[in-house]
Formats: sequence, C-alpha cells, structure tokens
Amino acid sequence: MKHLPALLLAKKRDGAELSDEEVHDLVSGVVDGSLTDAQLGALLMAGLLRGGTAAETANWTRAMRDSGFVHDLSSVPGAKVDKHSTGGVGDKVSLVLAPLAAVCGVRVPMISGRGLGHTGGTVDKLESIPGFRMDLSRDEFVAAIERRGVAMAAATAEIAPADRRMYSVRDVTGTVESVSWITASILSKKLAEGIDALVLDVKCGRGAFMKDLARARELAETIVATAELCGCKTRARLTQMDTPLGVAIGNALEVVESVECLRGDGPPDLRELVLLLAADMLVLGGVVDEHGAASEIAAAALDDGRALACFAEVVEAQGGDPRVTDDPWVVLARAPFVVDVLADRSGWVRDVDPYGLAIVALCLGAGRQRSGEAIDPSVGLEAVGRVGDEVSTGDVVARVHARTAADAERAREGTAACVVIGAERPESRPLLLGSVGFDVPSP
Amino acid sequence: MKHLPALLLAKKRDGAELSDEEVHDLVSGVVDGSLTDAQLGALLMAGLLRGGTAAETANWTRAMRDSGFVHDLSSVPGAKVDKHSTGGVGDKVSLVLAPLAAVCGVRVPMISGRGLGHTGGTVDKLESIPGFRMDLSRDEFVAAIERRGVAMAAATAEIAPADRRMYSVRDVTGTVESVSWITASILSKKLAEGIDALVLDVKCGRGAFMKDLARARELAETIVATAELCGCKTRARLTQMDTPLGVAIGNALEVVESVECLRGDGPPDLRELVLLLAADMLVLGGVVDEHGAASEIAAAALDDGRALACFAEVVEAQGGDPRVTDDPWVVLARAPFVVDVLADRSGWVRDVDPYGLAIVALCLGAGRQRSGEAIDPSVGLEAVGRVGDEVSTGDVVARVHARTAADAERAREGTAACVVIGAERPESRPLLLGSVGFDVPSP
Repeated sequence: MKHLPALLLAKKRDGAELSDEEVHDLVSGVVDGSLTDAQLGALLMAGLLRGGTAAETANWTRAMRDSGFVHDLSSVPGAKVDKHSTGGVGDKVSLVLAPLAAVCGVRVPMISGRGLGHTGGTVDKLESIPGFRMDLSRDEFVAAIERRGVAMAAATAEIAPADRRMYSVRDVTGTVESVSWITASILSKKLAEGIDALVLDVKCGRGAFMKDLARARELAETIVATAELCGCKTRARLTQMDTPLGVAIGNALEVVESVECLRGDGPPDLRELVLLLAADMLVLGGVVDEHGAASEIAAAALDDGRALACFAEVVEAQGGDPRVTDDPWVVLARAPFVVDVLADRSGWVRDVDPYGLAIVALCLGAGRQRSGEAIDPSVGLEAVGRVGDEVSTGDVVARVHARTAADAERAREGTAACVVIGAERPESRPLLLGSVGFDVPSP
Repeated sequence: MKHLPALLLAKKRDGAELSDEEVHDLVSGVVDGSLTDAQLGALLMAGLLRGGTAAETANWTRAMRDSGFVHDLSSVPGAKVDKHSTGGVGDKVSLVLAPLAAVCGVRVPMISGRGLGHTGGTVDKLESIPGFRMDLSRDEFVAAIERRGVAMAAATAEIAPADRRMYSVRDVTGTVESVSWITASILSKKLAEGIDALVLDVKCGRGAFMKDLARARELAETIVATAELCGCKTRARLTQMDTPLGVAIGNALEVVESVECLRGDGPPDLRELVLLLAADMLVLGGVVDEHGAASEIAAAALDDGRALACFAEVVEAQGGDPRVTDDPWVVLARAPFVVDVLADRSGWVRDVDPYGLAIVALCLGAGRQRSGEAIDPSVGLEAVGRVGDEVSTGDVVARVHARTAADAERAREGTAACVVIGAERPESRPLLLGSVGFDVPSP
C-alpha cells in the first residue's frame, strides 16, 4: 500500500470521499494482506456508518472487480446481459431465465453463488441434477456463451477475491447491512462476467434481506447509479417477497418447478416474474424495443418448448442428465419421507410466511447455516396453498420432503404454523412493487 | 463469549447502549481472543462514530480494569491519590509531583507509561537515571507506598491487558481519537492502581493530543463523570500546551530540570503547574481543606528540600544513584555535541512551537516512533528562550544536545525554525485554561 492505512481509515471515519487511487490502494491491501483484519473491520464499519458517494462506491466496485479475473466477452457478438436477485425464498428464476433470455437473443454469461442462511443459491439448485458441473474453466465459460448463448457457472476463487475477504469480515462484524458495501459486493462479481447490461431483482419483504420498500429502493437506486458509473446499463425491479416465489422450496424440488415453468406451466407468480425480467433483459440488450412485445416473445419461447430445449442443452453440455427436462424424478434424488400438511379449518389462505418456511427447509437440510456445509438436494417443502386460495378442512396446503420420519413430523408442525388460514379472503398482493431506471415504471 | 459478537457489534453500530454484561462479555473476548481482530477493529470504529453514554463508558472502564490485576491498597492508611496527564511536550510534572504530594500527606501509587510519538513518558525519563528500576513487583509497589508514601512504577503486562490489545488495534485503525475509548483506556489503568482519587491534567494546544479547548473540555468532563461512576473522586484541569512546559525536552535533561524544581528552582511555569496539581491532590485526598493553603504547604515542601529528599529516597530504593539529586550530571549520560541556537534578530520571543521541537527531539533519538524502539536518554533540547522573553541578536534562545555533529546541525536548524522572534512583545498566555469538577474553577 502506498498510503498509510490508518490515514485512509481516518479519512473514511471523518466522512470524506476516498479517491479512486486511495480505494485502489485499500483494495490492494485487502488482497495482499497488508491491510490487517483489524483495519478491514474498522474500514467496513466506518463505511457502513458514514456511507459513500456513488462515485466512491463505483471506485470500490471497479477496484474489487479488478482484484481478480475479469472476463472479456467483446469478441462474442450480441448484447451480454445478466440478471441478479438479492435473494428470496423459492427464487428459482435464474434456472428458467438464463436459457429463456438466450433463445430470445441476448447472451447470458451467468455466474452464480451458493445458498447461505435462509436463501438458496442457483449453484446448489443446479447441482441437484446429478453430474451437472458449474466449475467451468474460463475457456469453457466463453465457449458455452458462443455456442448456446448461455453459460451457468459458479463463482470461482479468481472472481473478485477482494470481495471474498471483505464479505467474510462483514459477516462477523455487523457490517453486512450497508448499502455501499452490498452494492460493491454484488457489482464487483457481476461486472467480472463481462456483461454490457444488468437487470436487478431487488426482493422486498419478510423473506428478503430488505424488509421495507424504502430501503429496498435505496439499494436498487444505489446499484443502478453505481453500475451506470461503471459503464454497465442497469435497471432494477422491486418485487414482493412477503410470500415464497412459486411453490417449491428446496433444491431438487425447485429444479422440478423450473422445468414446469420452462414447459409453459408452473406457478403463475414464477412465470410472471420470469417474463417480466426476460422482457427487461431483451429491451436492455437492445433485442426488442418495446417491453410488451418482448414479454410476448419470451412467453412464446416458454410455450413452444424452445427455452426448455436450450436448458436441456445446457444441462447436457455441463455434464448433467438431460432427461431432467422430460421426467425430472428419473434423475433427481427424492426424499424418502413425504408428508402432507392439511388445512385444520376452512377458509382462505391469508398468509404464507416465507422466512418461517425457509427456516423449516434449512433445518430439513436444504440449506446451510455456515458456508461450506453439505446440503441435501432432495429435501424441502411445497407450499401448495397460495395466499388467496380457498381451502376446506383437510385440504393439502403444503407438503414436506424429509430424510427421516422425525424430521418430517417436526417440519410438518413448523410448516403448518407458517400457513395462516382465515375466514376472510385476503387482498391480493402485486408482485411488482416498483422499478428503478425504467422510463415506464411498470409494464 | 456468551453473546454472539456480531450481534453486540450490530447493537453498538446502531447506537444502542451496551449493558454491563454485554461489555463484560466483549472485554472477555478481547482478552481470550474469541473476539477476532476484525471484530475488534469494527467495534472500536463503531464506538468512535457512535460514542457512548457515561454509564456505558464506565462499564468499559471497569471491565477493562478487571481484565488484569487490580491493586488493593485498602490496608495502606491515608488517601491514595494519583495524577494523570494526557501528555505534552516537556511535561516532567510527575517526577516532581509524586514525591512532593507524598511528603505533603497523600499516598501516591503512580504507574506510568513509556513515551510514544511526540510526547515523552515518565518511565523513559526516570530510566535515564542509571540503575533506576520501574519494574516493581506487586509487593515492592505496595511496600514502597507503605514506607515512603510513593511508588513510581511502569505498567506491567498484568495491568489492564484488554486495554493493551485494544490500544494496539486503535493505533492502526484510526480509532485513537475517541473520547469514550480514551477515557476507558486511561481510567482502566489508573483505577488498577487502587486509588481513591485522581487529578487529571488535560493538555490543550498544538503540542497536545487535544488541539482545541472544546474537545479538551469534553474529554475532561467525560473522564471525570466516568471515574466518579466508578467510585473514584476525580477532578480535571485544562492546561495550555501551546508552548513547551519548562525548558528541557529530552529524558536526562528533563530529570535535571525536575531536580531543579524539587530544589525550589527551575522554570516558573513548571513550578506553577506542579503546585496547582499538588494542591489539587491534597484537597482531593482530604489532607488540606483549602486550595490556597494546600498550595502554600506544597511550595514549602519544595523550598525546604523535603520533596527533593523524598525523591532521593525513591531513586535509591528503586536502584538508582541518589547523587542525581545533588549533582545530576555526575550520574546522567551527557550528549557529546551541545550546540547553541542563537537569535538572528533582536526583539521578543513571540512563539515556541512545542510540536516542532518534539519532532526535532524525536529525530535526535529522545523518543520513539514505534513502541519498542530504543531511545537515547542523553539527547534533547533546551528551549531557553521562553515566549515573552526579550532577546538581542546572538543571544542563546535554545540549545541542542546531540549524538553527532551532523545531528546537532540538523536539529539546530529545526529548532531555530520553532522559535519565532518578532518586534512586538506577545501577550502573555495563562497556564490554566479551565477546570472540571472544582467548585471554584480557578484557584
């Protein structure tokens, strides 16, 4: 480091804007270890409490991106566009969206993470398909995009290593919840994919990281402004996460639901969100001018099987069994104990608590509490009864997939507590809560 | 740790008050290492930016004090009173004050630190007396107070170990300048001495840690309020540090000046401050009721040689050569190159920059830039020309004591730049800038 770390820390502490060179110096120190853990902890806390200008956050983003390997996809024709979600319960959108957007004409260089805590990860979901490899080499990644328009890979150690150390320190120092640090963390990894444009799905509600709309909007606006300063066209959608997305929660179960959606079926809220974000990617990538038309093009690609065929190709190319698209349960692991959760009264499903269900699924073994833990792809939940459904006593409102009878029983009780049935029909909740960066706020 | 560190960090981050138990838990983690460096860095930054209530700062103080050995002097008769200074240039008050207060009737269990950066430390000054041992055992410390009413010891590893780790992290994370952390750091060590009362000398000005009076007053008020909550009677003086205290800067040179003051001679500002603080100690310890009377009692003990005799006893008891009180230069190391700095014009000394002189002395080898560095007791400066002195061209305004001719020449130039001579007589600056906790603000 050229600057004395303690002086840069004092500058950040006092609320001054750090220059591009100063940020670069600190990020070098993060990677080469000359910034000690103590200094990094203090820096992250100062950043959380002082915030940062969009310009400084862009400096952090670029420096963190450039701390590792950055894909250069300039030789690949077409617009390279990806989607990022801040994480929700039952969010399997990426599995459907990546092949769908690719068959509709944008290139999708998608690098995903594993699940941690109450939200799942795309890598875990896809790896529940036996043989599916996400550890693509640089060349395999680029070749896949050139050949099929889409690659679905896991983040490797060479992508944004500064973010990895910073995130591990944020995780134990109470500094995860900083809009600046979240922005730089997300974008440093996404921009390393070599994308031209990015669509952001900021989840908001009990099942999401951001619980209230104002904070979610602040995050969306910061990410959009920062990404634009970094030269990446970016738009954001704020979407509801007060109930799970779709029905399935759990890795193999979510693959099955994704395949249903790719067949033109599946839960309507999942299809609605997939089409919204697919149309955003097509418009942002310049493939279609008008959002409504883009949405129709995407819907057609789901309904005529082209998106499903592309997904089958991706699965086969990356070592997985492509029969997963014909008859998923032939290839996926099935949990030995499947138990129904029944309605104990008649009425309407008034509430389905996504956070509660996520914790139940986590305890079943579908997720991990600490990074590195093994997960069980077969276990999980199906929240069959959706908010607004009319049910009678004894109807199946949910289904538990468990490893043991005891697990199943515990999960049944926990799940039942998350599904609230009442005498009055609840008001319907829109999926789309807002938009950032779109001329027309809502399609 | 019983609580999850990240949760306590989040609480502090959000500005909530930490309970006694929570603070105790964090301090345990500091000592046993279960609080990582990253967490400690983040905690210290959150504490600096969020501040803390007096009650919480008292919790930190007690927990940090109790992280190590705490002297119990309840079996020693009389009031146990100490003085703490926040550090200034040429501040040798402790060397004079400890024996003086002891002969006037309070017990002085003084534990001091080494110098770091631009300010010197009492330990370094006393250790310039050959043979003088400050690494007293617990028993030697108590025995010295019982026998002579005064012990002058260096802080050992068993005193407030939590503070040691916290200070070393503060030093590199831009979190030194926090009123709460400064308060807890100072008081945790002072209260481990087993004192009943404490007089604080908060220095203010260019040569001090606190540059402006408002900040100095805030620190003084916080320390006084916190110490009182911890059951220690405490009062503070705010004193001027815009010029050096006394003439000598450098370890052996400051011992010589201290001996002069103990003889009833020496620079008037040093004597003034010694008598002010001695009277404060006597009043606070309940030995004398009235400040003016206490000051007269202290002045008499300087003028009649009793304080000097006590100092000689301390020196001899702790292994040093007591002839230092008769003829200091017989026992102290003398620098081989002594060079005068002459006035280059006639007029009045308008300014003597204490920080500049401290840096010159540091470069001569009188201080250390990093903890653990060796120092040279013989080198330093005499700022003979005091602010307000009338001088003629060629008069000696300062004297440099150096190891080499080259060092002396460099220091001569640096020193000359710190002594500003002008055509107009400067206004006199009072030593005492304010008081905290005294009924009568100024004696």
